[in-house]
Amino acid sequence: VTIGTELLLGHQVDTNAAHIARALSEHGIDVFAHHSVGDNVERCAVMLNDVLDRAGGAIATGGLGPTVDDVTREAVARVVGTELEMHEPSLRAMEERFTRLGRVMSENNRRQALIPRGGIVLENPHGTAPGFIAFRADGGFVACMPGVPAEMKPMLAERLLPWLVERCGARGAIYTRTLHTAGVSESELDRRIETLFRSSENPKIAMLAHRDRVDVKIMAKAEDSTQAQALIAPLEAQLRERIGADVYGVDGETLASVLVRSFTERGLTVGVAESLTGGGIADALVSVPGASACFRGGITAYDNTVKTSLLGVEEAILREQGAVSAETAAAMARGARERLGVDFAVAATGVAGPTGATPGKPVGLVWFGLAFPNGAVDTQCMRFPGERGDVRQRAITHALRLLRQALAEQGSTAFSQDTAIS
Amino acid sequence: VTIGTELLLGHQVDTNAAHIARALSEHGIDVFAHHSVGDNVERCAVMLNDVLDRAGGAIATGGLGPTVDDVTREAVARVVGTELEMHEPSLRAMEERFTRLGRVMSENNRRQALIPRGGIVLENPHGTAPGFIAFRADGGFVACMPGVPAEMKPMLAERLLPWLVERCGARGAIYTRTLHTAGVSESELDRRIETLFRSSENPKIAMLAHRDRVDVKIMAKAEDSTQAQALIAPLEAQLRERIGADVYGVDGETLASVLVRSFTERGLTVGVAESLTGGGIADALVSVPGASACFRGGITAYDNTVKTSLLGVEEAILREQGAVSAETAAAMARGARERLGVDFAVAATGVAGPTGATPGKPVGLVWFGLAFPNGAVDTQCMRFPGERGDVRQRAITHALRLLRQALAEQGSTAFSQDTAIS
Repeated sequence: VTIGTELLLGHQVDTNAAHIARALSEHGIDVFAHHSVGDNVERCAVMLNDVLDRAGGAIATGGLGPTVDDVTREAVARVVGTELEMHEPSLRAMEERFTRLGRVMSENNRRQALIPRGGIVLENPHGTAPGFIAFRADGGFVACMPGVPAEMKPMLAERLLPWLVERCGARGAIYTRTLHTAGVSESELDRRIETLFRSSENPKIAMLAHRDRVDVKIMAKAEDSTQAQALIAPLEAQLRERIGADVYGVDGETLASVLVRSFTERGLTVGVAESLTGGGIADALVSVPGASACFRGGITAYDNTVKTSLLGVEEAILREQGAVSAETAAAMARGARERLGVDFAVAATGVAGPTGATPGKPVGLVWFGLAFPNGAVDTQCMRFPGERGDVRQRAITHALRLLRQALAEQGSTAFSQDTAIS
Repeated sequence: VTIGTELLLGHQVDTNAAHIARALSEHGIDVFAHHSVGDNVERCAVMLNDVLDRAGGAIATGGLGPTVDDVTREAVARVVGTELEMHEPSLRAMEERFTRLGRVMSENNRRQALIPRGGIVLENPHGTAPGFIAFRADGGFVACMPGVPAEMKPMLAERLLPWLVERCGARGAIYTRTLHTAGVSESELDRRIETLFRSSENPKIAMLAHRDRVDVKIMAKAEDSTQAQALIAPLEAQLRERIGADVYGVDGETLASVLVRSFTERGLTVGVAESLTGGGIADALVSVPGASACFRGGITAYDNTVKTSLLGVEEAILREQGAVSAETAAAMARGARERLGVDFAVAATGVAGPTGATPGKPVGLVWFGLAFPNGAVDTQCMRFPGERGDVRQRAITHALRLLRQALAEQGSTAFSQDTAIS
């Protein structure tokens, strides 16, 4: 149960629900339903009561702040039928926290140390309000945590989950393996794996489309990770056989992290030249820890004068072919490779919109250039759908895919050369 | 009611709930609660029944796909007590869609044209499954839409909302004005506006902390926008007086969009030199439509050799002071300003982590350089908390804030110079 009027007004996307649900399912605790309710003590109490009537317990976040709008403590006290009482150790911890931060604790803050009598306190080292677990006479429990994710997440991991696992027992958890694909539509993917999709019960298969990729999830219910692995591995092999090279990574991997690893393993360096993507390709690579092992740098040449001065794109090309052209993309890639002193360079120049379209060069048109270690340059043209943000994001993803392809094609040659030299 | 086992497993953050809630509240339709339930026909029906017992209607998304896991149609038929029947126009639209995409429609897809008898069909020009509105004998309604946001959003806006407004009547809507602040903590902000916070009933004030900013929301319940404006304006003025220059924009504005507008209005140009932020500052500026009017380009000098070759940072500085130092940040800003030919340049170099920390230079330490039109350069050192992603995001935001400050300080001088020249 996530509590907060901002959720019902749609001012805040509820990320706590998914975070908690995931943590619970990974620990073998079934989630029957999720509810959001506003900062209203009556409705909050009714909701929590309903949940306890249908499930063994409820986990709630939000509404533990110091204001009168924060009603969770009171609602829970009603549901479990006890009084709120001051929890002195929590009060002292709060006072110490305020002193440490050099602030004066207001009278309102004292309310945050109120806990339903007989409850278990969940300490909050990352914020003011402690969480707690309260019990109804029939044994149903309500566990309450702050709504701020930075406070909730550690409290869940360090305090609540161990208690829940102990209490609810892990009757087999759900283990997930995620295959990330790029460059293939959801329907095409569906066509390739359709028969596996329909025939598989445990593990189950699910597809989730994102703006820059489609994920195929394999979910196994198993007693432990060994059993899960035995269930997942054969299905993963079948899926990979059908999807082919469009699978670029698994689980926590991203296209950028896979690239950084591949470049680093081969001892190759990479640089970028960007126009419409404006630093986004470089940003994606630098977001990967350890990117410095292969990524040297990038040049964002948004203005044409910079394309000439820093990337050496001839003015004649810009004048005659335009900034969005195969010739410019090629010259940008070549210029970046030479001036950054890297093995590979990728370049992107296009019309992100909403303005800037010309006859023959609509919004979404993007030219890519790719410079190889031997100095050769390839170009490619794409037309991406959507608005400025979509076009730019798709162009970033596509540039990373081009680097991945180039590395794959180059693979054997590059290696054999290296081997020959050493 | 959002329907889908992926929500209860936490594999997908539910963004539909917030989108729909926001649209409803903006049209004066109260949302009492939100629920998520898995792909289980029993639980789904129980949930929808509960909702209809407590509210005038339910809006559901998800579970309209072609597979046996998609149970929404069946659950709704049970709840409203009617049969499902084939809706021929929807079936034909689906067949045409498949033909157009060059695919064969499977027998399963036919199920997607089943609609509870007596229901209203909501056409889906962006996907396969139509939505529908079904009615229980007591008049309670269930409106169902696909779970895919790209299909749900237009269906909501074009078909469902007009129907809802007509049926439920708009008894005053909630109008929101959002003030964005950066560089001030939530608790400090709370201290400044505390008394307004507590005393205001309509409009209400809410604070929402994000990674890169804290928003102050003013929410007025009003009959129309004129009345809302009359309620919001005086409170906004009071809030601005208390918060001061830390308010950088309102509603849909971002720090980057405000900067692009300010630079453009003054006819000034800007460039960036990035190390740990790796293109992220440039990316933030380029994300703004029309950025080309002031943003010329950027140099991501991730490797030290690039700091020297493309930004002219002396090797001696890098050797003696290190890449993360005031001297390097200053040289990067100066180099970017000169080589990009811009009025202002901002530079960031720091330790993003998880590795790269050295004695005296911990993870999170970032040096900024700022080059002014007259050639002067300022530097500043910050220590940001969090992991690689947090440090990088905070550094990006801080760089944008420095540009904003510089522009504000420069303001009168720059203008008087311009005026003097023209």
